Amino acid sequence: MNDLIEVKYALDTFYFLMTGALVLWMAAGFSMLEAGLVRAKNTTEILTKNIALFAIACTMYLLVGYHLMYSSESGGFLPNLGFLLGAENTPDDVFASGGEVYYSARSDFFFQVVFVATAMSIVSGAVAERMKLWAFLLFAVVLTGFIYPIQGYWKWGGGFLDAAGFQDFAGSGVVHLCGATAALAGVLLLGARKGKYGKNGQINAIPGANLPLATLGTFILWLGWLGFNGGSELKISDIGEANAVAQVFVNTNAAAAGGVIGALILARLWFRKADLTMALNGALAGLVAITAEPLTPTALGATLIGLTGGLIVVFAIVALDKLRIDDPVGAISVHGVVGIWGLLAVPLTNEAATFGAQLLGIAVIFGWTFIASLVVWFIIKAVMGLRVSQEEEYEGVDITECGMEAYPEFIGSKK
Amino acid sequence: MNDLIEVKYALDTFYFLMTGALVLWMAAGFSMLEAGLVRAKNTTEILTKNIALFAIACTMYLLVGYHLMYSSESGGFLPNLGFLLGAENTPDDVFASGGEVYYSARSDFFFQVVFVATAMSIVSGAVAERMKLWAFLLFAVVLTGFIYPIQGYWKWGGGFLDAAGFQDFAGSGVVHLCGATAALAGVLLLGARKGKYGKNGQINAIPGANLPLATLGTFILWLGWLGFNGGSELKISDIGEANAVAQVFVNTNAAAAGGVIGALILARLWFRKADLTMALNGALAGLVAITAEPLTPTALGATLIGLTGGLIVVFAIVALDKLRIDDPVGAISVHGVVGIWGLLAVPLTNEAATFGAQLLGIAVIFGWTFIASLVVWFIIKAVMGLRVSQEEEYEGVDITECGMEAYPEFIGSKK
Amino acid sequence: MNDLIEVKYALDTFYFLMTGALVLWMAAGFSMLEAGLVRAKNTTEILTKNIALFAIACTMYLLVGYHLMYSSESGGFLPNLGFLLGAENTPDDVFASGGEVYYSARSDFFFQVVFVATAMSIVSGAVAERMKLWAFLLFAVVLTGFIYPIQGYWKWGGGFLDAAGFQDFAGSGVVHLCGATAALAGVLLLGARKGKYGKNGQINAIPGANLPLATLGTFILWLGWLGFNGGSELKISDIGEANAVAQVFVNTNAAAAGGVIGALILARLWFRKADLTMALNGALAGLVAITAEPLTPTALGATLIGLTGGLIVVFAIVALDKLRIDDPVGAISVHGVVGIWGLLAVPLTNEAATFGAQLLGIAVIFGWTFIASLVVWFIIKAVMGLRVSQEEEYEGVDITECGMEAYPEFIGSKK
Repeated sequence: MNDLIEVKYALDTFYFLMTGALVLWMAAGFSMLEAGLVRAKNTTEILTKNIALFAIACTMYLLVGYHLMYSSESGGFLPNLGFLLGAENTPDDVFASGGEVYYSARSDFFFQVVFVATAMSIVSGAVAERMKLWAFLLFAVVLTGFIYPIQGYWKWGGGFLDAAGFQDFAGSGVVHLCGATAALAGVLLLGARKGKYGKNGQINAIPGANLPLATLGTFILWLGWLGFNGGSELKISDIGEANAVAQVFVNTNAAAAGGVIGALILARLWFRKADLTMALNGALAGLVAITAEPLTPTALGATLIGLTGGLIVVFAIVALDKLRIDDPVGAISVHGVVGIWGLLAVPLTNEAATFGAQLLGIAVIFGWTFIASLVVWFIIKAVMGLRVSQEEEYEGVDITECGMEAYPEFIGSKK
Repeated sequence: MNDLIEVKYALDTFYFLMTGALVLWMAAGFSMLEAGLVRAKNTTEILTKNIALFAIACTMYLLVGYHLMYSSESGGFLPNLGFLLGAENTPDDVFASGGEVYYSARSDFFFQVVFVATAMSIVSGAVAERMKLWAFLLFAVVLTGFIYPIQGYWKWGGGFLDAAGFQDFAGSGVVHLCGATAALAGVLLLGARKGKYGKNGQINAIPGANLPLATLGTFILWLGWLGFNGGSELKISDIGEANAVAQVFVNTNAAAAGGVIGALILARLWFRKADLTMALNGALAGLVAITAEPLTPTALGATLIGLTGGLIVVFAIVALDKLRIDDPVGAISVHGVVGIWGLLAVPLTNEAATFGAQLLGIAVIFGWTFIASLVVWFIIKAVMGLRVSQEEEYEGVDITECGMEAYPEFIGSKK
Repeated sequence: MNDLIEVKYALDTFYFLMTGALVLWMAAGFSMLEAGLVRAKNTTEILTKNIALFAIACTMYLLVGYHLMYSSESGGFLPNLGFLLGAENTPDDVFASGGEVYYSARSDFFFQVVFVATAMSIVSGAVAERMKLWAFLLFAVVLTGFIYPIQGYWKWGGGFLDAAGFQDFAGSGVVHLCGATAALAGVLLLGARKGKYGKNGQINAIPGANLPLATLGTFILWLGWLGFNGGSELKISDIGEANAVAQVFVNTNAAAAGGVIGALILARLWFRKADLTMALNGALAGLVAITAEPLTPTALGATLIGLTGGLIVVFAIVALDKLRIDDPVGAISVHGVVGIWGLLAVPLTNEAATFGAQLLGIAVIFGWTFIASLVVWFIIKAVMGLRVSQEEEYEGVDITECGMEAYPEFIGSKK
């Protein structure tokens, strides 16, 4: 009997590690997406930000964030401060737990640490092309060490949002809305890129330099999201759990497909073009939309939830531009606006969810993250400044921040 | 005992989901391969086609294709029309089945749906740089919803080809030959790109714009193919099955390696250059060649089957150009000609196969797919036209179809 | 009971295959890293080398290398020559072994074959931009068939280094130091690229043409390394082993993060820039550093071992340039110098290791690989020459070796 428990523990741990590896891969996806959607002169810097934020997230979450998020009292509001990882589970712990302990504590950390990196990755795209690199990295330290883990505790760590019945399977709120809200706070303090909005209200398109990269990034995210949602079932080692994980895989994929279709058709009707960047954002919107509840919908339901996400993201991107909120990659629309849609869609298929609890969760995550982020961004702005100089912005941040061009042999930035 | 059955079910389901995830990743591989092999001015459009066809495949196969392919009578010819997915397996179903039911029905759908997307991905490369985007997507609806599932039923759904003894382990025929045949029908109606063939019979090379992307795409496909073939064993949870899956991984990798070596050496001898695009197509040819039977050969045998595929693909690419069949990425040669080689190689190592049954399978898959596709392409041509205007082709389809360039800052298309 | 043994065998085999697939993916990582760090005019050739070396490694290791490495006597020095793969394990073998045989012999070959390809991938970057393609491929035949397997036998095949207590969990020595040493021997015979070092001692930077590719390559390697180290535990199917694999995943990721932080901060202080290429090499250095012992450190310890690797690699790259050892991608520093650091760090956390045995291992691997490689490079130089002509080097090797440009439409190499 214990032998069987050991095999199940091993299988669940392996499942956690492999789905976590897929989520880690999303870091590459965000990097390529953002590198493809900015201009050539700002590409090295966005790549540097992406690899550095991932390293910071892994380290800060190890040092303090994981303990904050997962070692605090049930139903509470204030997390316990603590450091590093706890003890690994011993065979005796496992046998004695009666099935409560069924995977390695280290595999849990691995899975969680790649989530916080995802949240931070969302920010880098929105503030691209004009924020100082070290200001950004300083913010990454605070978000991944404190802001994210605290709201994560409220839901996934068993805090008061969880007690209130807020439902968020894999993080439309905890990860995506959180990241997008932190980005929004930064963008509001930072302002738009030079030349994005004209004096007479016109909105100027600033095309990305490398669309194959952006497409690659989207496919990476699509693949990685199978781990993001699929791993969030947390267990696979019996028939019911295996069926659940399979349903999550099917629904996650279906929602992404629906998102592409929704965004592509809407863009065709509205802009008269098969707009690739809208199709890519549609895929991501479908993925964000299903993330709050990828288990209870049917595959057709998931397709429709994703398709709706794909429609919403097109409207959101246009609306944010009208509001002169300049988000070069559409991250706030994809992860924030559609994240809210995903959370509100949960009660449509999951009887355990209520609109009231979902609204509470949205308000708390948005409120906490926005205020905390705004304060941090403000302090950073006061201390070292958030924005590069006008001349640096014109020349591109690659040379001044990183000392090297991304494509030094390909002459001819038109901008 | 039932506990053990549950663990095995979970393991087989997880294996299906992870190998399916690898196959999903092939969509990125085809996108990058094709984006690297077309000219810069047609890159956005091929990317749009690739992400859109994947979304369409997932949705059409969910709506109708999966039911057509897997819910029809054994040994038959006409499939039953039906919609959406059936019920998931319950623990009682599993326990009662005596080992017949050993993985989640949803995991089976997930694995199958990424296969149909692969078949459709093959088409996009062959018709690149001159086909209208929406004509292509309309064809994708029909192929993934009907043409592919019907021939798929004949073999993998237990239809008459399966009853006749036709062997196709992972789809050299059902997937690759089918996709290549649909592409061939399209190319014949569409005609060659302007400037590809001169008036006096000369063949003009039209180099791809971005070879690192094409190489990346090939590596992605190589990796994904481990799931494509490895998952097609369908089960891993005992010693015999685990050994079989391992053999398939080894042979798939060996055949790809053999394909590179064959194509590279032949290109060196024939063209006097270490032709990278031939090496890439050699890898893919090796993979296609082993797909019909990756289990029964030894690793050395797999290397030789792949190497032969690598030789064949070079001859096929040259031959198709002589026939003025313009396939910008070599998809018809790789997936069609070498797919036939793979099917014919099965009887060399698998005693259950006969040349007669293999030829029957080839004839049926080719005949059905070619005629059905030709009719569909013809109708689309009549209704909305297949080909962009000469001016659009000259300017590149990116601007007219998608409204954006893939590399807007990199000046200087020489073409 | 036997049923349980079968499931465990299946799980361990599947774990081996999936981690092996991640290691295979590293081939794409090296390709993209190197393609991004060379100049545009030498990109097609480095891509060709990478895909060809992978094919050669797979084939030579199948033909002779695997047998050399794993079929020789315990504690010995001279390996037995033999060919191809042995028999697969039967259920009877497994049941009779009392737990000694717990995974498919083919899955072991698959895992090992992707390791030898990794070792060879290290070489291609260091000799980039001036070595003849076919000379390189000839060397690949010898390294992957003989030089690597022989020193691999001494440690992992149970030879005298293993008997002497040398510890190398996943190959900081057997794979990384071996590859880097072979590269160093080649670079010494080959000489620096034209224009790299001036007459008056100045060192000229030769920037890579495509930094997004290099970043992508680094993320691919980061992901693949989870399989490289995680699979090297060799077993996952009980609680203790599952915990060990999870610890290895956590530590491998933590060390990479530490490497980025170390290299980025040092580069900021030293060069006054957030140097992306140093950050990328920092990540790889962190990974190499932890590879010799990813199990016994805590996660914080792993972060510090990686961070130290990230510092060392920056110094090493500068130092090699001072010594006029021209390594376009920093491979000798990353895999060689930091590989030695990783081996020397083992006794810090693993009581079974001694500095004496580690130094012996370093000396033997370096000595054997350097001398054997130097002899082989020398013979190749005598027979066909190692270096392209000055004119070919100036024009770029893509045209002369491969007959095609990597980016034919992007005008304007400045060099």
